[in-house]
Amino acid sequence: MNKNSSNIMALAPNTSNKRETVCIFGTGDFGRALGHKMIQSGYPVVYGSRSTQISNLIPKDAEVLGHAEAAQKAAIIIIAIQRQHYNFLTPLAEVLHGKVLVDISNNLKLNQYPESNAEYLAQLLPGSKVVKGFNTVSAWALQSGTLDASRQVFICGDDVEAKQMVMNIVRGLGLTPVDKGSLLAAQEIENYPLQLFPMWKFPIFLSLGLGLFFFFYSLALDVIHTYIYENNNFSFFIAITVPNRVFPVMALTLFGLVYLPGIFAAIIQLHRGTKYRRFPDWLDKWMLARKQLGLIALAFASLHAVFTLVTPLRAFASWRTSKQIISQALSNETVPLDHTNAWLSDSYLAMGILGFFLFVLLGITSLPSVSNSVNWREFRFVQSKLGYLALILCTAHTMIYGGKWFLNPSAYKWYLPDIYMLSLVVPCAVLVVKFVLIFPCVDKPLTRIRQGWERNPRYSE
Amino acid sequence: MNKNSSNIMALAPNTSNKRETVCIFGTGDFGRALGHKMIQSGYPVVYGSRSTQISNLIPKDAEVLGHAEAAQKAAIIIIAIQRQHYNFLTPLAEVLHGKVLVDISNNLKLNQYPESNAEYLAQLLPGSKVVKGFNTVSAWALQSGTLDASRQVFICGDDVEAKQMVMNIVRGLGLTPVDKGSLLAAQEIENYPLQLFPMWKFPIFLSLGLGLFFFFYSLALDVIHTYIYENNNFSFFIAITVPNRVFPVMALTLFGLVYLPGIFAAIIQLHRGTKYRRFPDWLDKWMLARKQLGLIALAFASLHAVFTLVTPLRAFASWRTSKQIISQALSNETVPLDHTNAWLSDSYLAMGILGFFLFVLLGITSLPSVSNSVNWREFRFVQSKLGYLALILCTAHTMIYGGKWFLNPSAYKWYLPDIYMLSLVVPCAVLVVKFVLIFPCVDKPLTRIRQGWERNPRYSE
Amino acid sequence: MNKNSSNIMALAPNTSNKRETVCIFGTGDFGRALGHKMIQSGYPVVYGSRSTQISNLIPKDAEVLGHAEAAQKAAIIIIAIQRQHYNFLTPLAEVLHGKVLVDISNNLKLNQYPESNAEYLAQLLPGSKVVKGFNTVSAWALQSGTLDASRQVFICGDDVEAKQMVMNIVRGLGLTPVDKGSLLAAQEIENYPLQLFPMWKFPIFLSLGLGLFFFFYSLALDVIHTYIYENNNFSFFIAITVPNRVFPVMALTLFGLVYLPGIFAAIIQLHRGTKYRRFPDWLDKWMLARKQLGLIALAFASLHAVFTLVTPLRAFASWRTSKQIISQALSNETVPLDHTNAWLSDSYLAMGILGFFLFVLLGITSLPSVSNSVNWREFRFVQSKLGYLALILCTAHTMIYGGKWFLNPSAYKWYLPDIYMLSLVVPCAVLVVKFVLIFPCVDKPLTRIRQGWERNPRYSE
Repeated sequence: MNKNSSNIMALAPNTSNKRETVCIFGTGDFGRALGHKMIQSGYPVVYGSRSTQISNLIPKDAEVLGHAEAAQKAAIIIIAIQRQHYNFLTPLAEVLHGKVLVDISNNLKLNQYPESNAEYLAQLLPGSKVVKGFNTVSAWALQSGTLDASRQVFICGDDVEAKQMVMNIVRGLGLTPVDKGSLLAAQEIENYPLQLFPMWKFPIFLSLGLGLFFFFYSLALDVIHTYIYENNNFSFFIAITVPNRVFPVMALTLFGLVYLPGIFAAIIQLHRGTKYRRFPDWLDKWMLARKQLGLIALAFASLHAVFTLVTPLRAFASWRTSKQIISQALSNETVPLDHTNAWLSDSYLAMGILGFFLFVLLGITSLPSVSNSVNWREFRFVQSKLGYLALILCTAHTMIYGGKWFLNPSAYKWYLPDIYMLSLVVPCAVLVVKFVLIFPCVDKPLTRIRQGWERNPRYSE
Repeated sequence: MNKNSSNIMALAPNTSNKRETVCIFGTGDFGRALGHKMIQSGYPVVYGSRSTQISNLIPKDAEVLGHAEAAQKAAIIIIAIQRQHYNFLTPLAEVLHGKVLVDISNNLKLNQYPESNAEYLAQLLPGSKVVKGFNTVSAWALQSGTLDASRQVFICGDDVEAKQMVMNIVRGLGLTPVDKGSLLAAQEIENYPLQLFPMWKFPIFLSLGLGLFFFFYSLALDVIHTYIYENNNFSFFIAITVPNRVFPVMALTLFGLVYLPGIFAAIIQLHRGTKYRRFPDWLDKWMLARKQLGLIALAFASLHAVFTLVTPLRAFASWRTSKQIISQALSNETVPLDHTNAWLSDSYLAMGILGFFLFVLLGITSLPSVSNSVNWREFRFVQSKLGYLALILCTAHTMIYGGKWFLNPSAYKWYLPDIYMLSLVVPCAVLVVKFVLIFPCVDKPLTRIRQGWERNPRYSE
Repeated sequence: MNKNSSNIMALAPNTSNKRETVCIFGTGDFGRALGHKMIQSGYPVVYGSRSTQISNLIPKDAEVLGHAEAAQKAAIIIIAIQRQHYNFLTPLAEVLHGKVLVDISNNLKLNQYPESNAEYLAQLLPGSKVVKGFNTVSAWALQSGTLDASRQVFICGDDVEAKQMVMNIVRGLGLTPVDKGSLLAAQEIENYPLQLFPMWKFPIFLSLGLGLFFFFYSLALDVIHTYIYENNNFSFFIAITVPNRVFPVMALTLFGLVYLPGIFAAIIQLHRGTKYRRFPDWLDKWMLARKQLGLIALAFASLHAVFTLVTPLRAFASWRTSKQIISQALSNETVPLDHTNAWLSDSYLAMGILGFFLFVLLGITSLPSVSNSVNWREFRFVQSKLGYLALILCTAHTMIYGGKWFLNPSAYKWYLPDIYMLSLVVPCAVLVVKFVLIFPCVDKPLTRIRQGWERNPRYSE
């Protein structure tokens, strides 16, 4: 059911109350938020607390009892206390025997303890059925009802029936349970809410570094050099012209970096003659970052496209156009159409658009819901065949755009190559080596290696 | 498995028939459509009917028997009759004892009866295992095989094994069962197919109202005022110029309205000194509508972007450009580049593009499959940090674009402010208050309140 | 849990090893890859092999035994051997009695055998619990850890507990199990990885054929005719001008073809007076291809939009603009604004943009995660109401754009109509017939038929 309808249900809870009682140990923030939500959804809630006096903090329809009495009232007990106080539960082992204990705790940092909190709880109380869950939900979101983000609640546990009971409560609160298997998954579930885009860190820092380098490179050659040697103050180039030189360079370089690790992997496998040895660590990490690199490249390509399309709207562009036309009009001549130029201009635009179009297609297929609905053969067809086609088109776009400058000495200000020449390094290297790799004499042994064949079976690990 | 493969399966049903017999009570449209589909998928189908004569309406491979005989032939009985006739089933209670009854009924309006049809059926026949399902599937779609839309079938029921049996049939028909928990969820499942974008109603009506107001405001100032006082007939502005003044105003205003309720919520919590009291109803509803408001704002922003990009293609624009250039050429002068103007023009374009780019990113992360794959910390980072950055960029874009007009009396036609000045009201208010809220002396108590601290614990609810 | 976190888990496997032993029969490529992955994820692995000597190919932490000894060590046995060797398992029937056998085999082509491999295995060993799974995962991806694509593993089997055990292992490897029901689904699961966009084949070939036809048609009229009769070499039109005449024609024609089968279906149902007879095969297939046709139409529309927006950046366009302005300047006259032209230009641009905008909305709602979160009523509202509105807007866009040419003889080069006139054929036909179908005298009987009413019940199948 979609988010909307669930929201509505949350606003108008079912009145025919026949849900089972839930016990909550602990009256901290999350315990109270969860209790509120459960009462709202029609579950009778009993709090287990050391003191039954602090009831003013607790939802008013909830009962508050001592731990043992509260536990006896329910089959499911939510442990809303911190790991360091879990040992106070050991004296209650007898009362908690056979009960379902839901560990909802979170840690402050990744892999804080050798074993997960839920596994630790299961060791302390071997007679109880421990289920991990709810820790990925935010108390603030439960409280305010604004569950815009994920409604998924990851659940794991060794007892199937206990897990089912907890999953039913999750559904009763209008959330979606996701079964993550046995209690071994608890560590992963506890680490989950602490992450902040872990797979994006390296690609973003790499892009930032490269981007800053290219920005200052372009600033030096396009603004400062012009100012010093041509005495033209084009400082306003910082807003659009310079970014629009950096964006395509970044897009093409990062796009090349997406396909480079595959090239390295093929060379390493050919050299080793086997696929049964691990790649070096840097290559493994690089391969896992390809999707992120590709999406950042797509972002730069999109920005390049829009920055280019607004060109006619710029005051500078309309000033330059008027100047050219007026100088022609004043000299009383009309320049005839330069056919070579028309060909070049039209073909690099067309290639750029088609390359960008394929690139966007690649981006769409990397959406989780789309990539889940294609099989491996289809995914590799899109990412490999269409991906290389997009890379070829984008590289050709850049080459045709700037081809005339390669032999022009004025392009080498301060003896440095123009920025777009740098952008061709990585993609051209990738395309040349890939071209070699698809020759049958190289492709055949590589295919056999990838199907499990080994050149020197004795030396395999 | 993706839709495609399932379609193929539907076209070429499995021939090795060992599926269990299914009984269907009722030979109405949906009962027949479901029977057709089941026979196609290899299930033997027995219809239970008052008269066994009307067999020409029924799929030809199905058997038709009296209700009691039909029920005895199958473990699963699909109740394809309307709720008001359920009581005719009570005499059959003995035959139906222990059987799985699948309630597939729908109502004509939301919450038509106090309890759901499935719960009513379960009360009538307490010895049977009632499962709710199939009501969200369309008969027409089942019949024609064109299940382009959702293949999800929501299932709920109190008996786990009965639910499993029904879910297996759902899978056998090439559909995807979604377990919604116990029979308490039946009301929600019965309401689901009756909804028509319930969460979108308020945001869409608000946008329509605001949009019409701004359209006539702009029409009056840009077309009618010009016609009356300057005697210029620019009625064709209605097609592009006026919409392209309304779209950015709508986008910025609605974008501001996305962040306004969060500001109100913070102020209310600071004032009350606790988070444990419900917000007023209007604020709750507004907060739940933020995603929709944001997406509508994004739609207006996208339209604004495209309407702006086509400017050079307009006959009016090329006429105006020619006129300016020719007047310069005829007066034999070339206007030098206005550097301030070049700076302003380039920077408002750049800010607009970057703001729009971040806005599109926010839109992509609100796709269900993307928001399901990020955790709370990541979601709040994107929606809060990147969202405010986008709002700042878009507000700056508007300010720089029209900054020179604020002090210009010609901008106040009929003593009314220009439309884009109105667009700045909401976002500027949001940004100013937010700026105050991030001061440590305000932020610290707010953070503590959101972590569960209360200023006056005695007065909490 | 998202892909990222799972990747991380894969890199840092859990050390507290208490997972159950898994036995793998067969030491081929996939058997080894799966074994590697399982050992990495903490499962003890025992290989069953004819010869225990070839151990150098096998992951070094795995044990290698004879088949019978290996099978005795584990409750789950993964059958990583080819179907044609399954009969060697029959002597082991006693050892394998009660064990869970996981069939991971794939075939070389669709529906290669009358029954699926898993069902064949279940027939050979009726005492074992056969579960199908893992065949949709690629060995190369398991090995290299680069599971960028789907992490979904389709599972089916008749024994619920056996299925649960296999699903837990799937989760333990960081993958997502998807329960596809009983063993009858095995055929579908075995066919799945062999597919290469089966639903896209017909729409793509149709588009290619139509596209080539329109390309050469436009080439002949726009380039060759101009060259022969006007002696103008506009060969560079091949890069942008000709494609940008073909793209909108393709987009509009394919968009019309999306709604044409619905029109045919309505006519056939009205003619037959019943919905209970199958449509002809070609119509069924066409209806199932509508989504793909629509998405290809959207791709062409997007390309048309971008090709149009880059117009001002083309060398040809700026040459033409200069020429026009200079000729006006030299003749010392300024052409006044043509209001009719301004109206036409602005209104076809506005209609094109709005039509394209709605078209993109349709595309977004066809993303799997979005279409799963709307109900049937909402889906039909978007696809039918908004879809027809988009078609009307796009058709009007084309008509206004080229309306003046219809009566102009110069538009009929070589007595052939201009290409955009051809593009209007299909959408106009659809809109005219649809207009007839919504008249109450036609709509009412159609609605009744779709609700199950039959004109001649005696002749129904």
